[in-house]
Amino acid sequence: MNLTLEQRNRFEKEGYLFFPSLFSQEEVQYLVATVPELYERREEYNYREKKGDAVRTNFAAHLYSKPFAKLARHPRMIKPVEDLLQENLYMHQFKINGKMAFEGDVWQWHQDYGTWFNDDLMPTARAMNVAVFLDEVTEFNGPLLFIPGSHKKGVIKAKHDLTTTSYPLWTIDNNLIKQLIDRAGGIKSGIVSPKGPAGSMIIFHSCLVHASSNNLSPFNRISVYLSLCAVTNHIRRFKRKEYIAHRDFTPIKCLPDDCLTKEYEVDLPWSNGVPNSAYETSPKELLK
Amino acid sequence: MNLTLEQRNRFEKEGYLFFPSLFSQEEVQYLVATVPELYERREEYNYREKKGDAVRTNFAAHLYSKPFAKLARHPRMIKPVEDLLQENLYMHQFKINGKMAFEGDVWQWHQDYGTWFNDDLMPTARAMNVAVFLDEVTEFNGPLLFIPGSHKKGVIKAKHDLTTTSYPLWTIDNNLIKQLIDRAGGIKSGIVSPKGPAGSMIIFHSCLVHASSNNLSPFNRISVYLSLCAVTNHIRRFKRKEYIAHRDFTPIKCLPDDCLTKEYEVDLPWSNGVPNSAYETSPKELLK
Repeated sequence: MNLTLEQRNRFEKEGYLFFPSLFSQEEVQYLVATVPELYERREEYNYREKKGDAVRTNFAAHLYSKPFAKLARHPRMIKPVEDLLQENLYMHQFKINGKMAFEGDVWQWHQDYGTWFNDDLMPTARAMNVAVFLDEVTEFNGPLLFIPGSHKKGVIKAKHDLTTTSYPLWTIDNNLIKQLIDRAGGIKSGIVSPKGPAGSMIIFHSCLVHASSNNLSPFNRISVYLSLCAVTNHIRRFKRKEYIAHRDFTPIKCLPDDCLTKEYEVDLPWSNGVPNSAYETSPKELLK
Repeated sequence: MNLTLEQRNRFEKEGYLFFPSLFSQEEVQYLVATVPELYERREEYNYREKKGDAVRTNFAAHLYSKPFAKLARHPRMIKPVEDLLQENLYMHQFKINGKMAFEGDVWQWHQDYGTWFNDDLMPTARAMNVAVFLDEVTEFNGPLLFIPGSHKKGVIKAKHDLTTTSYPLWTIDNNLIKQLIDRAGGIKSGIVSPKGPAGSMIIFHSCLVHASSNNLSPFNRISVYLSLCAVTNHIRRFKRKEYIAHRDFTPIKCLPDDCLTKEYEVDLPWSNGVPNSAYETSPKELLK
């Protein structure tokens, strides 16, 4: 799946691409059916919301769940990013974000690269997010909000917010968000939110400023996020645990396009539990 | 302004009516220009958000601010409700809700009549809300969400939520919300949110279940809410302070239609401050 010139230009300008219904309902069903069992696990890799028991984000399922291990090697997710970055990719982060009915909490305005730079010492923004909707996304279940073109601003100064939600995030000052939204067209076009059926996919630049509201609706909005990094741009510091920021920089090898509906072998290194080493971080003297 | 048969039927079925751009930009400007000064006041009638200093809701401005005293007598707001209830109305509650840029917090799913019944002993649901947008409302600044037809359910069991936000609210159980939304068409049509330019108006039934999300955008979403009650249906208990639930059951007399752009005299009984009696409540033995 190579991108067209028009898609490349649009990505350059807007910082994201939206592919409605890229995965079939059968493919989505294969993935979504696994989620309840993963979310039930009382493991550190399941971050729950501040209030209630709903899972906010599950990390690293591609290392212990076969359906997600296959998705992590899916050519529809990997190839367009290889095409954009013109390099082999490794998996920097793998998340199944809940944004569950009634309980899904806000994600404040942020750039993902802000965290990857500040916490993980990823040298440059040669990394991208690819999200797949496992549920239909509407205006009512907390869709992703983007500020189009905000990726061109590069790395924006951010503040480590440890209190608003259950998950620490490097968030951006409101005045700067207002400027970026005004620059992108204000109330008319300064915020966009791709919405569509389960199986839709979004690619977005790691410097694209985004947020999402809480989910007041009775409809889950589960999405999978692959954070793909150019191999030469691998992180230089292990401040965060390995189940959050991966340390295996081996290039991803894609499976065939039908990997979600046919049987293929995949490696599941954490199928018998997360290794102790995944909870270790770099020695304190390196974390200055 | 009398309602058409089609409007009356739609109100009966859906529980709300939407009138885009009913007030001109000049009329809106006259109102909205007054808001910052009202919100700045360090008075008990300004409820601020749980976090930060933004005003969540301002009460009773029609008793101390001339522009809002005129709005409280505006025939475009009062006449359609008189027409629906076929009776004289008094002002049960008057609010300027902030839902301010970045800071506006969620309003949980609730019916207004739930509070008016539980707290104020208003005998029946012969009361309505009329809201005017003082800012443009989009999907991104926390619009009102309605469950169409939910007013037909009558008074729904509710729980007094004293912790989620800064303002106590009788909120409805998630399972029942899910049922109501499913009955109204689920993800396709079970939630609606009227959006439009500043000056748009909504009339909604006091049993219509509604909510609104937080406001992550840099755009305020200030709205004025008139809660109009049939005079014979006046509240029977003064559990809440008078600036929240009014005790003057005098029928509202409308001003002419041009009252927001021309000079008219209005009574401003609280212009020199809120009287002490407005902070008093019924004796405890009546509040059982």
